[in-house]
Amino acid sequence: MSFFDKQQNLKPERDENQSTHPPKLTRRTLLGGAATVAVAVVQTSWTKGVQIGIPEQPDDPTRRMGIPPGEVGTRSPFEKVVRKASDISSRTPLQDLHGTITPSDLHFERHHNGVPAINPATYELLIHGQVERPTVFSLADLKRFPSVSRIAFLECSGNFRTGKETMSPQEICGLTSQSEWTGVRLSTLFREVGVKPDSADGRPGWFLAEGGDAAVMSRSIPLRKGWDDAIIAYAQNGEALRPEQGYPVRLFLPGWEGNTSVKWLRRLEIGDQPWQTREETSKYTEGIKGGKIRQFSFDIDARSIITFPAYPVQVERGWIEIRGLAWSGRGKVVLVEVSTDAGKRWQRADLQEPVLDKAHVRFRHLWQWNGAETEIMSRVTDETGYTQPTFAQLIDARGADTGGYHFNPITAWQIKPDGRVLNRPENWR
Amino acid sequence: MSFFDKQQNLKPERDENQSTHPPKLTRRTLLGGAATVAVAVVQTSWTKGVQIGIPEQPDDPTRRMGIPPGEVGTRSPFEKVVRKASDISSRTPLQDLHGTITPSDLHFERHHNGVPAINPATYELLIHGQVERPTVFSLADLKRFPSVSRIAFLECSGNFRTGKETMSPQEICGLTSQSEWTGVRLSTLFREVGVKPDSADGRPGWFLAEGGDAAVMSRSIPLRKGWDDAIIAYAQNGEALRPEQGYPVRLFLPGWEGNTSVKWLRRLEIGDQPWQTREETSKYTEGIKGGKIRQFSFDIDARSIITFPAYPVQVERGWIEIRGLAWSGRGKVVLVEVSTDAGKRWQRADLQEPVLDKAHVRFRHLWQWNGAETEIMSRVTDETGYTQPTFAQLIDARGADTGGYHFNPITAWQIKPDGRVLNRPENWR
Repeated sequence: MSFFDKQQNLKPERDENQSTHPPKLTRRTLLGGAATVAVAVVQTSWTKGVQIGIPEQPDDPTRRMGIPPGEVGTRSPFEKVVRKASDISSRTPLQDLHGTITPSDLHFERHHNGVPAINPATYELLIHGQVERPTVFSLADLKRFPSVSRIAFLECSGNFRTGKETMSPQEICGLTSQSEWTGVRLSTLFREVGVKPDSADGRPGWFLAEGGDAAVMSRSIPLRKGWDDAIIAYAQNGEALRPEQGYPVRLFLPGWEGNTSVKWLRRLEIGDQPWQTREETSKYTEGIKGGKIRQFSFDIDARSIITFPAYPVQVERGWIEIRGLAWSGRGKVVLVEVSTDAGKRWQRADLQEPVLDKAHVRFRHLWQWNGAETEIMSRVTDETGYTQPTFAQLIDARGADTGGYHFNPITAWQIKPDGRVLNRPENWR
Repeated sequence: MSFFDKQQNLKPERDENQSTHPPKLTRRTLLGGAATVAVAVVQTSWTKGVQIGIPEQPDDPTRRMGIPPGEVGTRSPFEKVVRKASDISSRTPLQDLHGTITPSDLHFERHHNGVPAINPATYELLIHGQVERPTVFSLADLKRFPSVSRIAFLECSGNFRTGKETMSPQEICGLTSQSEWTGVRLSTLFREVGVKPDSADGRPGWFLAEGGDAAVMSRSIPLRKGWDDAIIAYAQNGEALRPEQGYPVRLFLPGWEGNTSVKWLRRLEIGDQPWQTREETSKYTEGIKGGKIRQFSFDIDARSIITFPAYPVQVERGWIEIRGLAWSGRGKVVLVEVSTDAGKRWQRADLQEPVLDKAHVRFRHLWQWNGAETEIMSRVTDETGYTQPTFAQLIDARGADTGGYHFNPITAWQIKPDGRVLNRPENWR
């Protein structure tokens, strides 16, 4: 089959990478065609703090010796891919990314008092409380234990914004990212210090995770999560954690709300009940029906979003591959459905293998747009049978107070007749 | 079980992250202990071209407001992880990395005339020759086709060095790296331009892949690889290809020798026989027995290497997790065995799931070193039944001329009584 008719093949697209094709497709005209396009644009590279002008483009790059290798590579100065940052957070540019791995320097950030400067040579992790052998571990100690690596997403439970049409996936839900995390299983350390499967009187145990940042970020976590799949992580995407991600050591709780994966981890205390910290009382709770408040809502509910086409791109009629991400904190994604008629009919999207547990999954669905105004949206179902709800279903479940955490509604994009793609802000606050 | 006896837990290790532990493990002494350690070291960060001093370490980081988020993250100035670079190549620091993903700026490079400056706005890919519809594709055209993502390794067929004891994994075989690649299947473009499954007279077809660099790097590839799993890649680890990796578009042939994954791809010509280019006659061939030369040896043979412990680390007696990477260009790794007694006995190592096709796999094996001098080594077996050979087996198969390509011998590390780990250069050239 052919995705473009010949004419489209020769017609420049409305795209920043637009190019005109020579009418005659010989190699001579190919190179000639390229040679006729002058490059005026000058921009900076995204290497922090450095200004690199775009190198002059030779008419024929094969006639100029290239740049030799260096100690580290760099992005192309033609690529502007950055996070939108505020004083407390920065958001991953989901609409600009491909596949499922987030480059470490584009992983979202959400801090409660900024990124502390911690010296790995003096770093220590204390594990104490209801344990047989209170112990302080150096970074070197932690790296000597048996290690584990896992590709998984990390999402902030406050990852939802709406309110206007001109919002990109980054603005709507850019507080989710994915990395390959490496560290030691917390269960290994629990055995090392002598944590009993549950506390003395049989009540389910808890532990306090405390960060070394200026907010002393602290959360109470059920012991079972520590025994299950918690990781004391010191590496991300092959290299040491980035400072913004908890360098030198963070807690990583697969599938749980981001704030529980405490960064710059300095202390774990084992006890038999939650500590009722600031971050689980005044923050990170949701209102539910009847004016009640839901506390300790750890699991990230299944969610999906179409990242292409999405604001700010403009599309042309014809074949479009709808692309997006889907994930669930409760296990594997089993189904992603896409609607191209505002939710009337749904079709199964293709999932990129391998589909991993508690991980972002790339979904794709081929669609031929006829140029008529419509809405496109996606919904995910995970292995527990949970299906991503609509905004109305969430409001109904939460009652008047929508809280603002764990808000994962189906996200719809309006496709205008001129090809503009806009957020559908059905849900003004 | 306990991996350290108590004494070890309190004893500083011979490690750059060395720290002393307070004798009494209360939180007060923990912080007090940290506060007594002054930080004198000053080094530069690895953000290319920028000098960033290490921030002064507050006695208690919780008492100082941290750094707010930015548009892109940075490495910790305490982490020096770089590639060893020459005029023609740079090598991934395998001994410093964790898991299986290689950060894009640490992916190895091997160029034949440097990195060209290519403007994505004028980039074009010509597909012509024995096709029904010769076509020029812009970058925007390529991005509109159905896409695919795949985590796979890329290795240079010349990835072997030895000759002295003081060599790290980076120096021995740092010309292999792993990324998640995204692009359009070449088979999709073959259908678009009308390539027949094989050429008119029934002979197996070939295509020429030509790069836009100053070497006009060119290789002849059997059509079947294009129909099988070849990718026209425009993204790597979530973002656009790096310039050093072929920006804006490269050919990616999973499991095949790196030079065939032609970077800065500008032309594909379909024909019925190989072009006998410079890179498949004077280069990238191996001598075999009887003075013959092996040509078109595309597949990367199965290989493994222990990356920890490895030169230059020094270890202490006690529990050590042996860690390494294993891969095969012919499919999945099914078995990695580790010997800790110079090859007399072999034990099955643990493989980190998921084990992917034609991908680096992280293996681990727990070992208690008694302090006696020994040698440790690993060998891999892939799903075809092929087992990584010894150096002697390779020399025997190749005859006098070892060629230098596709040389994948078992790599052994000497463990000295003082804990030094040294390459075993049994195979001086």
